Amino acid sequence: MSETDKPETVLLAHGSGGSLSHELVAGRVLFRISTEATPTLDDSAVVEMHGCIAFTTDSYIVDPLFFPGGDIGRLAVCGTVNDLSMVGAIPRHLSLALILEEGFPLQSLDAVMRSVGDTCREAGVDIITGDTKVVNRGKGDGLFINTAGIGLVPDGRHISGKLARPGDRILVSGSLAEHGLAIMAAREGLAFSSAIRSDCAPLNGIVGALLEAMGDAVHCMRDPTRGGLGTTLNELASQSRVAMLIDESAIPVRPDVRAACEMLGLDPMYVANEGKFIAIVEPSRAEAALRALRVHPLGKNAVDIGEVVAGRPGRVMMRTHLGPTRLVAMLSGELLPRIC
Amino acid sequence: MSETDKPETVLLAHGSGGSLSHELVAGRVLFRISTEATPTLDDSAVVEMHGCIAFTTDSYIVDPLFFPGGDIGRLAVCGTVNDLSMVGAIPRHLSLALILEEGFPLQSLDAVMRSVGDTCREAGVDIITGDTKVVNRGKGDGLFINTAGIGLVPDGRHISGKLARPGDRILVSGSLAEHGLAIMAAREGLAFSSAIRSDCAPLNGIVGALLEAMGDAVHCMRDPTRGGLGTTLNELASQSRVAMLIDESAIPVRPDVRAACEMLGLDPMYVANEGKFIAIVEPSRAEAALRALRVHPLGKNAVDIGEVVAGRPGRVMMRTHLGPTRLVAMLSGELLPRIC
Repeated sequence: MSETDKPETVLLAHGSGGSLSHELVAGRVLFRISTEATPTLDDSAVVEMHGCIAFTTDSYIVDPLFFPGGDIGRLAVCGTVNDLSMVGAIPRHLSLALILEEGFPLQSLDAVMRSVGDTCREAGVDIITGDTKVVNRGKGDGLFINTAGIGLVPDGRHISGKLARPGDRILVSGSLAEHGLAIMAAREGLAFSSAIRSDCAPLNGIVGALLEAMGDAVHCMRDPTRGGLGTTLNELASQSRVAMLIDESAIPVRPDVRAACEMLGLDPMYVANEGKFIAIVEPSRAEAALRALRVHPLGKNAVDIGEVVAGRPGRVMMRTHLGPTRLVAMLSGELLPRIC
Repeated sequence: MSETDKPETVLLAHGSGGSLSHELVAGRVLFRISTEATPTLDDSAVVEMHGCIAFTTDSYIVDPLFFPGGDIGRLAVCGTVNDLSMVGAIPRHLSLALILEEGFPLQSLDAVMRSVGDTCREAGVDIITGDTKVVNRGKGDGLFINTAGIGLVPDGRHISGKLARPGDRILVSGSLAEHGLAIMAAREGLAFSSAIRSDCAPLNGIVGALLEAMGDAVHCMRDPTRGGLGTTLNELASQSRVAMLIDESAIPVRPDVRAACEMLGLDPMYVANEGKFIAIVEPSRAEAALRALRVHPLGKNAVDIGEVVAGRPGRVMMRTHLGPTRLVAMLSGELLPRIC
């Protein structure tokens, strides 16, 4: 293929493992994502690490690929950085695996790779290994991304969804439902009165600040992505074999987001977030934790939404605005497919 | 959904993150792949490791999902185990991320997950973290899998594609082109005179035996997957900035495989393998390396195919059956899409 005959879209041969695969990776991916001068081209990257290693993975199939507040590249980096952060790990190294559909515009790939690189620099992680595959037209949807990540859990840190204890306070780092709503709006071409943007952000900075201030007073953390706050609290309550009681009036949702959810028939309790997290902490340290969160730009709206109680394991109850208490179930069915 | 109303195919709601996602993972995936009693349900798994950690990833989009000698599940485990093995790492822990298409039969998922579990046990690795996503009908192709993996590189071991030196011998662990041909035959419904099966296998056992026998006399290893032997030798020659001279008559291809390749117009030099590897070793230790390989069931047909020479960096030459020497280029274009 001559210089003047460069493809503008992904070809099946970009997935061959041969010269066009090498051109794609070297010419379009590596220099945009690299935070180091010389990436390894071996089958595996090798890094030195000592201690407790956190390891996680997620695939991203979000539709559309670009949305207010982010894109699939930013999402893929943040999602894995955040999953590592939620067990108290310091995220270090990521993998990046692309599944491209034949015909996908290479300019769109460039934009996503730039976003991957920018987000890695923002989060202080690097991509050290990767893969590129191509599927025939009609057998994919433009671009799917998988990231996996490894991070280091500092000595003596134990944070897990199974460590919530009755009496613990349940904190949320900020207002909810923005990611899901931004995707929905972008997909359906909805124009809201105010611009609702995805909250997609790397949480390792704010989590680091919280843990530095709190030490082992933080028992559990989790980011309420797919399934939203309601589902995530159910998961934590089940894993810890405790019950939870939260206050509807404390749950932080911006008025414009609440109005848009009402218009669309969505319950913000189940709408996905990509830059918020739940922290379950020692009751005596809850105020200090809120102060530590609120100092960080991503935690300005952090609030205490309720407490862990000794009740039927896995049961999450909510005191409603009107007074009575109702059960908060796990999401059943599908609210918004392909949100991440 | 009542007991009698269980879905038989993947629904969009299986990707919601809610109750159906949990049912899918708990009821269909975890117990089939698990090698441990209690998998973590946290956002990341945490394992203790000390030293040089190898980290790799690959996505698998093979078509068809089931083929003679393997399936996408076996491939996804072997591919990542082998990528770790190729830098001398002992594979330890894998991630498993599924991208399911709405409508994919759950029985097929079960079969793939059983194969993932069996292959993990065969290779001595475990899956400690994972993810499940669902795309709408027509936006995927049944099932794509991503695995990432981490392994431990023993102290003092340095194996890399950049360490080939002039004089080194180039060994291949067995006969070539079987994986690609098996896929091609399965896809096209071809019946060959003999059954040609994929060579898909975890290489960590044979690599461990080789390295134990040879110590630091092994300079490079790589498995010739997509792009085949021809492309992989080009990669190694470029990375090490050396030339290579191989003997066509030494390249191991079974007669039935060679005949099938000829019939289909395929050059076995470029057809993918999934259970073979190239080892580039000190010349004085090449015979010992061959002996170590041949003791292992996966290395019975190991041979010396040529040598590393001081020539134009990246150039791979082959002495042909007929006498003259010709250039072996990297694969250009696409031979067989979606081979892995």
